[in-house]
Amino acid sequence: MPETVEIGLGRSARRGYHLDEIALVPTRRTRGSSVVSTAWQIDAHIFELPLVAAPSDAVVSPATAVEIERLGGLAVLDGEGLWARYEDADAELANLDGSNATLQQVYSAPLVPELLRRRVGELRASGVRVAVRLSPQHTLELAPHVLEAGVDLLVIQGTVISAEHVADGGEPGLNLKTFIADLDVPVLVGGVTNYQTALHLMRTGAAGVIIGYGAHLGSTTHAALGIDVPMATALVDAAAARRDYLDETGGRYVHLVAYGDLATGGDIAKALACGADAVMLGEALASAANSPGAGRYWDATAAHPRVPRSLVVDLAGGVHDRPTLDELIAGPTDDPTGERNLFGAVRRVMGKCGYSSIKEFQKVELIVTGATR
Amino acid sequence: MPETVEIGLGRSARRGYHLDEIALVPTRRTRGSSVVSTAWQIDAHIFELPLVAAPSDAVVSPATAVEIERLGGLAVLDGEGLWARYEDADAELANLDGSNATLQQVYSAPLVPELLRRRVGELRASGVRVAVRLSPQHTLELAPHVLEAGVDLLVIQGTVISAEHVADGGEPGLNLKTFIADLDVPVLVGGVTNYQTALHLMRTGAAGVIIGYGAHLGSTTHAALGIDVPMATALVDAAAARRDYLDETGGRYVHLVAYGDLATGGDIAKALACGADAVMLGEALASAANSPGAGRYWDATAAHPRVPRSLVVDLAGGVHDRPTLDELIAGPTDDPTGERNLFGAVRRVMGKCGYSSIKEFQKVELIVTGATR
Amino acid sequence: MPETVEIGLGRSARRGYHLDEIALVPTRRTRGSSVVSTAWQIDAHIFELPLVAAPSDAVVSPATAVEIERLGGLAVLDGEGLWARYEDADAELANLDGSNATLQQVYSAPLVPELLRRRVGELRASGVRVAVRLSPQHTLELAPHVLEAGVDLLVIQGTVISAEHVADGGEPGLNLKTFIADLDVPVLVGGVTNYQTALHLMRTGAAGVIIGYGAHLGSTTHAALGIDVPMATALVDAAAARRDYLDETGGRYVHLVAYGDLATGGDIAKALACGADAVMLGEALASAANSPGAGRYWDATAAHPRVPRSLVVDLAGGVHDRPTLDELIAGPTDDPTGERNLFGAVRRVMGKCGYSSIKEFQKVELIVTGATR
Amino acid sequence: MPETVEIGLGRSARRGYHLDEIALVPTRRTRGSSVVSTAWQIDAHIFELPLVAAPSDAVVSPATAVEIERLGGLAVLDGEGLWARYEDADAELANLDGSNATLQQVYSAPLVPELLRRRVGELRASGVRVAVRLSPQHTLELAPHVLEAGVDLLVIQGTVISAEHVADGGEPGLNLKTFIADLDVPVLVGGVTNYQTALHLMRTGAAGVIIGYGAHLGSTTHAALGIDVPMATALVDAAAARRDYLDETGGRYVHLVAYGDLATGGDIAKALACGADAVMLGEALASAANSPGAGRYWDATAAHPRVPRSLVVDLAGGVHDRPTLDELIAGPTDDPTGERNLFGAVRRVMGKCGYSSIKEFQKVELIVTGATR
Repeated sequence: MPETVEIGLGRSARRGYHLDEIALVPTRRTRGSSVVSTAWQIDAHIFELPLVAAPSDAVVSPATAVEIERLGGLAVLDGEGLWARYEDADAELANLDGSNATLQQVYSAPLVPELLRRRVGELRASGVRVAVRLSPQHTLELAPHVLEAGVDLLVIQGTVISAEHVADGGEPGLNLKTFIADLDVPVLVGGVTNYQTALHLMRTGAAGVIIGYGAHLGSTTHAALGIDVPMATALVDAAAARRDYLDETGGRYVHLVAYGDLATGGDIAKALACGADAVMLGEALASAANSPGAGRYWDATAAHPRVPRSLVVDLAGGVHDRPTLDELIAGPTDDPTGERNLFGAVRRVMGKCGYSSIKEFQKVELIVTGATR
Repeated sequence: MPETVEIGLGRSARRGYHLDEIALVPTRRTRGSSVVSTAWQIDAHIFELPLVAAPSDAVVSPATAVEIERLGGLAVLDGEGLWARYEDADAELANLDGSNATLQQVYSAPLVPELLRRRVGELRASGVRVAVRLSPQHTLELAPHVLEAGVDLLVIQGTVISAEHVADGGEPGLNLKTFIADLDVPVLVGGVTNYQTALHLMRTGAAGVIIGYGAHLGSTTHAALGIDVPMATALVDAAAARRDYLDETGGRYVHLVAYGDLATGGDIAKALACGADAVMLGEALASAANSPGAGRYWDATAAHPRVPRSLVVDLAGGVHDRPTLDELIAGPTDDPTGERNLFGAVRRVMGKCGYSSIKEFQKVELIVTGATR
Repeated sequence: MPETVEIGLGRSARRGYHLDEIALVPTRRTRGSSVVSTAWQIDAHIFELPLVAAPSDAVVSPATAVEIERLGGLAVLDGEGLWARYEDADAELANLDGSNATLQQVYSAPLVPELLRRRVGELRASGVRVAVRLSPQHTLELAPHVLEAGVDLLVIQGTVISAEHVADGGEPGLNLKTFIADLDVPVLVGGVTNYQTALHLMRTGAAGVIIGYGAHLGSTTHAALGIDVPMATALVDAAAARRDYLDETGGRYVHLVAYGDLATGGDIAKALACGADAVMLGEALASAANSPGAGRYWDATAAHPRVPRSLVVDLAGGVHDRPTLDELIAGPTDDPTGERNLFGAVRRVMGKCGYSSIKEFQKVELIVTGATR
Repeated sequence: MPETVEIGLGRSARRGYHLDEIALVPTRRTRGSSVVSTAWQIDAHIFELPLVAAPSDAVVSPATAVEIERLGGLAVLDGEGLWARYEDADAELANLDGSNATLQQVYSAPLVPELLRRRVGELRASGVRVAVRLSPQHTLELAPHVLEAGVDLLVIQGTVISAEHVADGGEPGLNLKTFIADLDVPVLVGGVTNYQTALHLMRTGAAGVIIGYGAHLGSTTHAALGIDVPMATALVDAAAARRDYLDETGGRYVHLVAYGDLATGGDIAKALACGADAVMLGEALASAANSPGAGRYWDATAAHPRVPRSLVVDLAGGVHDRPTLDELIAGPTDDPTGERNLFGAVRRVMGKCGYSSIKEFQKVELIVTGATR
């Protein structure tokens, strides 16, 4: 039975927990890191790491997508980002000045479907598995181009979505149930914040569901909209939906991809512990020396033309020794903040807790902690 | 049954929740912003937005009242403010220096009933619906002037009021029950912090009850008096009083106007979600380029002659690009803090949560959250 | 039944509440400030205000004692402070440099009983009611001098005391039960942190019990000793002891004096609401222009020769407009922080909550609040 | 029954308490400090203080080990630290620059077993009881050298360990059950975070179990790995394991040594109150004028070659008056922060709570406190 509190007379609410309110408790025989596997398989695709690089132009370019695949993860290109709007996206990136106003302006250029097809083709040619993100608003228009160009994995993602949308005009919008059922490629879909929507999206036939909207240091979604996702609770609830859907279908397993509040190896480990099969990382990778955003991070909500909902975060600051993607993702590092060698840390904590696979690790004991010194 | 804790042996207390301890949970079919209505009707008056501009001389002048009406809201002029004390209120505003001492001095000038009548007349002449605020202390003296001059809505408002007051000589003070019953114009009355007083004030025949005392960045009421209003709980409790009063009267619906802790679109959305029909905004509008306070904000408690209970807040600082009222209230904006395009944000979150009117939106699911990163 | 949590397997603990975790809820007919009485009577002594000035050399000198009496409160001179150690205490005060080391040195001078007698005599001569504080360690030695010199109220006070003490050497120390029973003057005794000790001290025949050890901005008792007094809980528990003792004795009423975490009018109001009959203020009065500490505050724990447990706090800083005791205690003020016109604020909140005496005000409704904006 | 909360649907977690969420409640007859004993006996070794100096090269050198023994505590030399890697460890210490990178480099030098034997011999020669720490990874290799050289107490310690380890390669690692059973010297083993592991380690025959991993100001283990130890809960749980093991063995008492979040006398007192028999201090001693780290503090996790998990903390800063070990441990002091005269403070609070030995003090009443001013 979920934990509820009474906010006032006759009105109750769940108590939701953020990842930084919980911690992992090692209770079993410890294991060395080398006898731990962090492998992740979704559909036919096997990855060495449970890592999905977020569809932010600040992180995933055609160039870094190759790097991320080499390091064991999956990179998602934003199908509505600069690479689908400009022939020379790098030139546009160079013109950004860290303000939301400039971002709004640059992202107001029209989407060019032909350009998008070409990007997919180029990625295929470089030998990586190709994943592209489309918003629910543009999926009907753009998906055919992406599919024909040969995408391996389609990501349909908005801040908060539902299986059925009432569009502006009162007409039914994109119906994910029928849309996904007709596709041959696996689909990741989200973001989702609760049990019910997670279950509905699982029923669309999606291969995976994204939990959260990518809350990060610059996010103001809570301030602007009043929506907040206590990630630990959201993941545990979605894992319950996964169990119920497994039962309902007699065995169809839908992957959970955590997206939000993931800055350190510990955050990632806790997300996996709460039921995630993989994590979608944006800000955590944006400080890399070769990131397209040059050390700045932004997501799609930062460029919204009317209600922008995150700041452009400057992660590089005056820092000249920005890390490589290798150091951030796989280490080694001499940085003790927990923000580098993210998956080396995950492997280590899985060993300290005595688990040898992510699926097993989802059973680790959790503890809720209060104020830390 | 309300949630109580035991503070010590034999003494219990409710646990009250502030707006920033809760968040909204989208659980339904999403909707486009254009199929959402934010309209608000009180008595015969229809407004496009559930917006009441607070009776602060820093926000509502005869000039900005017109602007606010144009943008879809209702402006309340302080009937005991500078426009009711000085022929040339603008000159007095120009002399303010940001100190409470100067404020005390400027507000110590006598109230001039004739001036107040004239202001009401000028507002009528400009074609807006005229709302004036009086304190319970001066209502008996000033209300006749305001009413005769043709006010559309009377606001009787102190920090914390009750239906019946024991005045300074032990004599009964203003009896709101008899006073309001005799009026023809609709009355907003408050502030109120709890179920009981809300119910008593509903029984006066008021059209609406104001919940809270306008807590804002500069408020020190908690420090000075020990009184604090956990707004989420106060609104939910008042909504319970509204239900009980609806039942008691066989259908008289009293409006709840939230006043306090409302700085962003998310705050406003949460207040509506907790049961408010509209919000009274002061500080959130004071940074406007054309605000009478020139970017400073203060309310009546800041000018109190013996126990001032809020600081004069300087919202403009060194900032030269102060927003227009249009950008603050209706957008668009390139500011990602959640403090601009307040009602564009509200419309958006109503859509994300799947509701098409404010009354329906009051049923949205809430979650209590802990520490955020 | 008290609220308990389980810290770990087989070990429970109470949850204690600090004053800043609670707030007052006005639920009754409001009253004007002038129909509210803040009078306090202990034994035969009647005071206009429920104010005891703490026995700190930074606050109570023979000169300020007269001021405090004039303003309606009771001043307690530290019988082991500089006025009992030096002929010219003012000269010593002038030599203090804000360090604990200097404090330790100045307070290492021997106590001079004859000087103490003279101070009591001088105070009597100035027409005020004379209260002197002694530590339990020196009470047997110094009390006779103080009593013979004509003290009106004896204050026996250490950080944390008990009714019976096992002295260094294993011998029984001061037995308060027998000591107080034999006295003719009323005694205030403390500090106390819990029900049990409060009840034991009530049984000594004391007129009042002091709750808390005077926690203030500079206090480090929690850091140094691990002891902390959640004042709301401590007062409510002590009020329960008072009720039980009233019943046990068939009507002997023992006063509770709150001492600690009292910086503003709101803090004082909450302490009274939790059951205090009066408050002991130190730091809150130390910023006065004529305070002997010249705007610095320290208490006896700051001068401890081996384990000092509070910093010397500099309240004056670069500030040149230090308030008068009149402004701090009785107002009016133009300072909106809640730290001035302390008892004007108390009177106001009592009226807003609808009570006309402190004893009644102890029944006001409380609410536990979470994080404030 | 332990306190649990539901994080989400179908997943519960304990609520763990940190030391700074609890406080001690004096409820008994008070005692003078001189009638309080802080003595600690483990195996045949008696110490005046319940103090174990942590095996950090920043704190324990062959020279400071002698000082710490003189002051009444036990110093543990890191058997894998600089003194076991370099002939001239002081020269290496002088080259450190406060970065983790330099630390990684200096600690990458090979361990020299012969050097380790010599250090043990020198310590014996200086007349102190010799304790050496080895990591579980190197225990099988290095323990014979240490034992032959004549260690008095062996400390087998990693961040988080278990009684049985699955080593890299899948082979069983060090089996503490069989290893410790065969030893003649008493063994301290840890760190441990929960009841189960504590019980397992008690069953190895260890004389004492270390609770926690030494969390301090520079620790990032929570960030990097997601592991956190709420020390109050961990100690209370381990004390429950101790009781159960006492029962199981008909009387074998295993000591608990708290390690982490111990910066002040109050922290130490609370750890003892929660069931610790002694405390292991690192950072708290590192500011000493004669500390080998020259005022910097680091532990073994700071030098980890792939995933460093703590920063090098600079405790000296620009401060020129660094305290002596005498002042830090036994006082007196004029520093009011609670960070000096640590055990003088412990003695004092034991007296204020009315206990005369540590074992009795473990029964003191605890209170859980919320936000402090």
